[in-house]
Amino acid sequence: MKLISSQRKLSTAINTVQKAVSSKSTLPLLKGILIQAVDDKIQLVGNDLELGIESYIDGQVIEEGSIVIDSKLFGDIIRKLPDSSVVIEVDSDNMIHIKCESSDFKIKGHCSDEYPKLPDLDEDRFYEIPEDLFKNMIKQTVFAISQDETKPILMGELLEIENNNISLIAIDGYRLAIRSGQIINNIGDIKVIIPGKALNEINRILSGDEGKNIKVAFTDKHALFLIDETKIITRLLEGEFINYKQLLPKEYNLRVKVPTKTLLNCIERTSLLAKEGKNNLVKFSIRDDIMIATSNSEIGNVQEEIFITLEGEDLDIAFNSRYLIEGLKVIESEEIYIEFTTNVSPCIVKPEDGIKYIYLLLPVRISSSR
Amino acid sequence: MKLISSQRKLSTAINTVQKAVSSKSTLPLLKGILIQAVDDKIQLVGNDLELGIESYIDGQVIEEGSIVIDSKLFGDIIRKLPDSSVVIEVDSDNMIHIKCESSDFKIKGHCSDEYPKLPDLDEDRFYEIPEDLFKNMIKQTVFAISQDETKPILMGELLEIENNNISLIAIDGYRLAIRSGQIINNIGDIKVIIPGKALNEINRILSGDEGKNIKVAFTDKHALFLIDETKIITRLLEGEFINYKQLLPKEYNLRVKVPTKTLLNCIERTSLLAKEGKNNLVKFSIRDDIMIATSNSEIGNVQEEIFITLEGEDLDIAFNSRYLIEGLKVIESEEIYIEFTTNVSPCIVKPEDGIKYIYLLLPVRISSSR
Repeated sequence: MKLISSQRKLSTAINTVQKAVSSKSTLPLLKGILIQAVDDKIQLVGNDLELGIESYIDGQVIEEGSIVIDSKLFGDIIRKLPDSSVVIEVDSDNMIHIKCESSDFKIKGHCSDEYPKLPDLDEDRFYEIPEDLFKNMIKQTVFAISQDETKPILMGELLEIENNNISLIAIDGYRLAIRSGQIINNIGDIKVIIPGKALNEINRILSGDEGKNIKVAFTDKHALFLIDETKIITRLLEGEFINYKQLLPKEYNLRVKVPTKTLLNCIERTSLLAKEGKNNLVKFSIRDDIMIATSNSEIGNVQEEIFITLEGEDLDIAFNSRYLIEGLKVIESEEIYIEFTTNVSPCIVKPEDGIKYIYLLLPVRISSSR
Repeated sequence: MKLISSQRKLSTAINTVQKAVSSKSTLPLLKGILIQAVDDKIQLVGNDLELGIESYIDGQVIEEGSIVIDSKLFGDIIRKLPDSSVVIEVDSDNMIHIKCESSDFKIKGHCSDEYPKLPDLDEDRFYEIPEDLFKNMIKQTVFAISQDETKPILMGELLEIENNNISLIAIDGYRLAIRSGQIINNIGDIKVIIPGKALNEINRILSGDEGKNIKVAFTDKHALFLIDETKIITRLLEGEFINYKQLLPKEYNLRVKVPTKTLLNCIERTSLLAKEGKNNLVKFSIRDDIMIATSNSEIGNVQEEIFITLEGEDLDIAFNSRYLIEGLKVIESEEIYIEFTTNVSPCIVKPEDGIKYIYLLLPVRISSSR
């Protein structure tokens, strides 16, 4: 194999595919990046058997071939090279020569024969989704994925395509986040569960630029995301996702309208004392046009007042402040609605600006005497 | 005690004095910040018994007094408050009320009676040093301080004032860094040893602005640095510093002139393979107008060529690349001189731009067959 490309392009592609390389793998091959030079195309691949990322880069293929090179060392070398053209050549002993200006590296490679193949997906039948929408959908839901390995299905998100509507749904047992939007083309309604790890990596790769689309294709076991010159292939999680629709309250007894940033800042301050105890417990008293947030710990207590617009009855309710903070942080709308039923039933946070986002969270039960 | 100041001023002062607060202290008082409101002055103090930092801020003293408040919690609260005025009031039970707009915190304080006093230093007799010079002096030497707790004296730097000259000197047994400059006023030649921790904190507090001076005063046991509204008081290290002057070679057999950044980049790349082995060993072959840097490890090897101007004989020599990299990183001069005697004697790196800086480092002995 012999190829020439630029330091910059190689460096960008390595950064992308490295996300799918497991540095902890016991198989040396999986700690490597596959470099393939075939048909005048240069391709880098990372693959940890759950998630695979392929990236194509421009360059000149002088001799076809492929090799696997240690991912960390390869990345470190390329990143430190000057912004110039890089020659990568493999000799008959699998030694990889990397030359750039006055630098000359010789690194032991691994034969690529045993490198695991990524599944083939039919790239001609794909859904198209606006890139900025999909990035926002991930950002506004992915933090609500469960970290509990005993509930593997909740460590992914439900991706649901129905008519012109696409939704991502995450649940962890304490809160539920749903973000929906308009898909560009639907080639068939579908429900699949995408692992959280894949969504996090897709989010990092997505530029979020307006006007660009990503392409998505599925098999029974895999999903393919095509973003510019990068392909992300992930296994799907198998099993039945929670019937989330039945969790959504049909009505509410009171509704509060409040500026998002003001509320977020208040709760962040209140939670400084809540951290000391367990549950990050912050209590709210909702009365007429004011909401009072309080928190206590051994070292002291805090009270914050927030002006609100209230429709409905008064209410005392308590939340784990971390869950509330995480939800408020991803809402861009200047104001939000919070809909409550009772102080032991889930409440719903919605942006006021009409974006299709629902963040449902369970209150913490408190005895009325506390 | 009751005072009013601004969130911004309090926040800046807390960030400064927190550097001298030890979060690991077993004494709760030392995990706190002392707030003093006396004579219309508001002062914050952090003190870990080795290093003390005092900062004065503008504000209004309504009732004189003092209190100690948990440093981390106080910092977190003030940082999260809006950019507005903050009222701090202590009641008879040492409860501290912090009020700002709609926020109302009540935090348990500690009585300040037992808080350790910082030594009094005569602030009328001081040396004056340009702030940008002193910041550079620290930056160019402090990394060469020993981390070896069995040699406590080398965990500080010698500060030497002689005539109009001020120098900071750090030695760790493998390298020696000396940076000198012109002092503005000398009130008496002096040699003291300043702990590395204090120098690092001073460096962080110094703005490095041109045209400003800092004031420095000494007692037998302490040094005082006065930077704007901030006082840093550190214990001096006791003992005799190494007679560093006798370590400096009087002459050299060969001298190399080389672009600093080019050499640094080459060594950083070469060291990627050197890290794999021990000692970060990088070998240099100096021949006529070229220097070849090489490094080997199990996974491969690297060779870099650097164009140089050589006066004197050829030489093969090896260094711990980390030491060389750390020295080159703090030199601003576009070109440097490296002076060698033999491949087992110390070499000296000097900036070409005339700045009074000497970085001496020991080579690593290598057998000629390797």
